[in-house]
Amino acid sequence: MEHQLTIYNTLNRKKELFVPLHTPHVGMYVCGPTVYGDAHLGHARPAITFDLLFRYLTHLGYKVRYVRNITDVGHLEHDADEGEDKIGKKARLEELEPMEIVQFYLNRYHKAMEVLNVLPPSIEPHASGHIIEQIQLVKEILHNGYAYESEGSIYFDVAKYNKDHHYGKLSGRNLDDVLNTTRELDGQGEKRNPADFALWKKAQPEHIMRWPSPWSDGFPGWHCECTAMGKKYLGNHFDIHGGGMDLIFPHHECEIAQSVASQGDDMVHYWMHNNMITINGTKMGKSLGNFITLEEFIQGSHKLLSQAYSPMTIRFFILQAHYRSTVDFSNEALQASEKGLSRLMEAVNGLDKITPGTSSTVETKSLRTKCYEAMNDDLNSPIVIAHLFDGAKIINNIIAGNDTITLDDLNDLKETFHLFCFDILGLKRENSSDEKREIAFGKVVDMLLEQRLIAKANKDWSTSDKIRNELTNLGFEIKDTKEGSEWKLNK
Amino acid sequence: MEHQLTIYNTLNRKKELFVPLHTPHVGMYVCGPTVYGDAHLGHARPAITFDLLFRYLTHLGYKVRYVRNITDVGHLEHDADEGEDKIGKKARLEELEPMEIVQFYLNRYHKAMEVLNVLPPSIEPHASGHIIEQIQLVKEILHNGYAYESEGSIYFDVAKYNKDHHYGKLSGRNLDDVLNTTRELDGQGEKRNPADFALWKKAQPEHIMRWPSPWSDGFPGWHCECTAMGKKYLGNHFDIHGGGMDLIFPHHECEIAQSVASQGDDMVHYWMHNNMITINGTKMGKSLGNFITLEEFIQGSHKLLSQAYSPMTIRFFILQAHYRSTVDFSNEALQASEKGLSRLMEAVNGLDKITPGTSSTVETKSLRTKCYEAMNDDLNSPIVIAHLFDGAKIINNIIAGNDTITLDDLNDLKETFHLFCFDILGLKRENSSDEKREIAFGKVVDMLLEQRLIAKANKDWSTSDKIRNELTNLGFEIKDTKEGSEWKLNK
Repeated sequence: MEHQLTIYNTLNRKKELFVPLHTPHVGMYVCGPTVYGDAHLGHARPAITFDLLFRYLTHLGYKVRYVRNITDVGHLEHDADEGEDKIGKKARLEELEPMEIVQFYLNRYHKAMEVLNVLPPSIEPHASGHIIEQIQLVKEILHNGYAYESEGSIYFDVAKYNKDHHYGKLSGRNLDDVLNTTRELDGQGEKRNPADFALWKKAQPEHIMRWPSPWSDGFPGWHCECTAMGKKYLGNHFDIHGGGMDLIFPHHECEIAQSVASQGDDMVHYWMHNNMITINGTKMGKSLGNFITLEEFIQGSHKLLSQAYSPMTIRFFILQAHYRSTVDFSNEALQASEKGLSRLMEAVNGLDKITPGTSSTVETKSLRTKCYEAMNDDLNSPIVIAHLFDGAKIINNIIAGNDTITLDDLNDLKETFHLFCFDILGLKRENSSDEKREIAFGKVVDMLLEQRLIAKANKDWSTSDKIRNELTNLGFEIKDTKEGSEWKLNK
Repeated sequence: MEHQLTIYNTLNRKKELFVPLHTPHVGMYVCGPTVYGDAHLGHARPAITFDLLFRYLTHLGYKVRYVRNITDVGHLEHDADEGEDKIGKKARLEELEPMEIVQFYLNRYHKAMEVLNVLPPSIEPHASGHIIEQIQLVKEILHNGYAYESEGSIYFDVAKYNKDHHYGKLSGRNLDDVLNTTRELDGQGEKRNPADFALWKKAQPEHIMRWPSPWSDGFPGWHCECTAMGKKYLGNHFDIHGGGMDLIFPHHECEIAQSVASQGDDMVHYWMHNNMITINGTKMGKSLGNFITLEEFIQGSHKLLSQAYSPMTIRFFILQAHYRSTVDFSNEALQASEKGLSRLMEAVNGLDKITPGTSSTVETKSLRTKCYEAMNDDLNSPIVIAHLFDGAKIINNIIAGNDTITLDDLNDLKETFHLFCFDILGLKRENSSDEKREIAFGKVVDMLLEQRLIAKANKDWSTSDKIRNELTNLGFEIKDTKEGSEWKLNK
C-alpha cells in the first residue's frame, strides 16, 4: 500500500495525502438515494464517483468497508423541516404502504447500478431500520444541552452550538448567512431559531411512518440517519464521508454538528463531494423535475434525447469529467463519449491481435505510472482516460505495422489496460457478441484436447480417458483423426 | 375475481375455499431466508411455491401485498434458544461486521431468485430493522401476563398460555409431547419450563448485535420478527402466512401463541406450508450440511451432480411436484425435468409455426378450463403441467399435418400456453442453445484449469504457464483462489 493518493478534503478546501486511521482498513460512508422514484443521471454520478474510489482503494490493497445508506424515512419535501415525507407522499398518491414504494424503487435502483457496473457497497443500511440508533443519538445531543424539546419534537439548537463550536465549518457559511436565507415556514414556530433543525419530529395523525420515542410518536429528522448509521457500522471516527455537493449544506453541515454535539468531535476525516450534473446550466434533480432517468437514457425514450445511450457510455461520460467539475448534459457530449469508448475498447481488443516482435520501438512502461499518478491526483479519471487514449494510438500503430513490441512489453501493456479500463474505471465490454465467445470457447476445447493428446503420448490413459468421458457427458462429440482431434458440440 | 381457488389450510388440515378478508386486497407473509450462506435447492422451493401463489392471485385480479422477511438477527444455531447467532458466528469466523455478511448473502440470494424467475415480494423487511416493533410485541405479551423476565431475558410462558389457549393447534403437538422432546440445554436454567421460548435475550458481552430494551441490552427471540413485521405491514389480521413445513414447529406455533397472547387471536387466516426437498431421504438443509447450492446446480460443480442444470430446469423440477409432496433430489429426476421442459418449450415455439386452417379437428378450449381447475385445486402445478403436455401433443400433431386448427382456436391455444407457462408457472425461455452451450463450454474451461493445477502440482511450470497465457490471450481473466481457479471471459 505504498501510494501517494491525495484526495480533496472539502473541510480544508485542499488536496491531502490519504492516510487511513487504521491501515489496512478503510471506512467509507456515502449518502445513497431517497427511494421514491427512478434513478436518474444525477444519481449515477455519486454512485460512479465513489465506485471509482472504492475500486481504487481496494486495488491499492485496503480492506474497505463501504456503507451506502438508503433513505426511506424522514426526508421531507423541501429538504428542510416542513412539507410531507417524500416517500409517504408517494405512498398516499399511489395508495400503497410506504415500504412498498421503497422496495419497488430500491429494486429498480439496484438494477440501474448493476448495469452501470457499480459494485454493491459492503452494507446498505435503511434509515427506517435504525430508529433506535437515531433516538440514542438524539438523547446524547439533548443530554449535552445542544437540543431542546418543543411540542413533542426535538430541535438542534444551532445558536447555542455555534457559541461553543463552529456551525458552518464545512460549508463556509456563517450563522448570520443561514438566518438571512432561511424562509419562515409553516410549523417553524416550534423552533427557537429558524436555523435550528429537527432531530425528531412528532408525527401528525395522518403520518404513516411513525415510531414511539421518549418524546412523541414520530420519526427522526433527515440528518440523523447518516450520523447514527455511520457511527454504528464504521465507529466513532472513520476515514471518508462522501456525497453530492448539494449535500454539503444543510445535510453534511448538520451531520458534523450532530457528531460534535454528541461525541465532542467530528467522526469524519476526509469529506468528499462530487459536483452536479447540469442540464441547460441547472442542477438535474428529482425535486426540480428536470431529470432524465437512467432507463430513459438506455432506451432513448426522453424527448431531450436524440438517441439511446448504453450504460457504459453513461459511465464513460461521467468518468470523462473530474468528479469535482460540473458535467452538462448534451447529446453531442454523450455521442462523443460513445465514440471515445468504442475507440478505447477497439484498442483493448486490438491487443489480442498483436504478434510480438524481437524489439520494441514504442515506450509503454510509463503509461501505467502516468495512470497511477492521475488516479493519485484526487481521482483524476479524465487524465487517466487521456493516457489510455495515448496508449490506444500506440496499439493502433503496432497493428498498422508502423511499430513493433516485445512479448514482455505487450504483456505489460495488456495488464495496464485491463487494470485501468476494467478494474479501476469499472468499464466493461458491451455487445458481447456470442460469436466472439463461441470462438474463444472453441479454442479452449482445442487446448483441452491437446492436453489429452499429451496425456496419451505419455501413456497416461486415466487422464486421457477422463477428459474424453467428461467431454462426452457434456455433449461433445470427439473424433480422433491423424491430424488430431475434431469435435462438435451437440447442443 | 370469480374463482373457486381452494388452498390447504394447515390449521384445519383441509382444503378451504380462498376468501380474502378485504377483497380485492390480499395480504400474504412468507418466511424468507436467514442470510448467512448461499441459497440452496431447499430455499428455492418455498420461494417458487409462493411465487406461484403470488402470480396466480395477481392473475385472478387481486392486489397482493406480499411480504417476505430477511432474518438477519436472532436466529440461533439450534433453532432453539441456545447456541450462537448464525450470522454473528459467520461474522466472527470471517472477521467482518455481521451486516457485511448479511449484505453479501442477500445480494447473492436476490441474484439466485432472479435467475429462477421468482418475482420480488412487495416488501422485504429485515428483522434487525424492526427491533422497536418486536420490543412493542414483547411488552404487550408481558402486559397480558403470558411472559416473564428472567436474568434480563424475557420468556414466553407456554404452560400459562396453554391453560387459557391451545398451544399446539397448528402443529398438532400437545404440551406434554413438547416437554418430552425438549432437550435440557445450556442456559435453559433461566426458563420456568423447558418448553418456554425466548422473546428477548440478554446479550452476552461478546455478542455484537444488540439493542437497548427495558429489560437488557440484547436482541429479540427468533419468532418475534414475523409476528411483529406481519402485523406492521399487513395488519392485525391478514390472509395467508406461508413457509416450509419445517417451520410449523416451533416457529409458526410460537407465532400463533405470540399473536394470541398479544392481541387475543391469531392474525392469520390460511396457514400454508410447502414440503421439503430431500436428498437420500433426508431433508436438505444448511444446518444439516447436506445441501447443494443453486449456483452449484447451475454450474454442475457439486460432486453429486452428473451435469449442470439450468435455472428453469430447477424451477420446472420443483413445479412438477405438488408443493405439499416431498421432492427427492436425483440426477435422473432433474434430467427428466430438463427433457420435459424442453419438450414443452418446443411446443410453445411450435405454435408460431402453425398455419391455421378452415376447420379444427382438435378440441382446445377445454385445456384452459382444466388448467384453471388444477390451479384452483390447491395450486396443483403437476396437473397443470400434465395438461400442458396434452396440449403439446395436439400442437405436434397439427405441425405433423395430422390435425388442423382454425385461427380462433390457434389464438386461444397460444393464450392458454402463454398464460400458464409464462405468467402463472413463471417459466421463461432460456435461449436454450446459447445458454446450454455456454454452460458446457464453461465446464471445459474448468477442466482445462484443473489440468493446469495438476501441472502446477507436478511442478510442470511450462505447461501451467502455457495454459494460463493462452487463456489470457483469448480474453479469459483467471484468478487463483484457495478453492481453485475462477475465470471470466471478457467478450
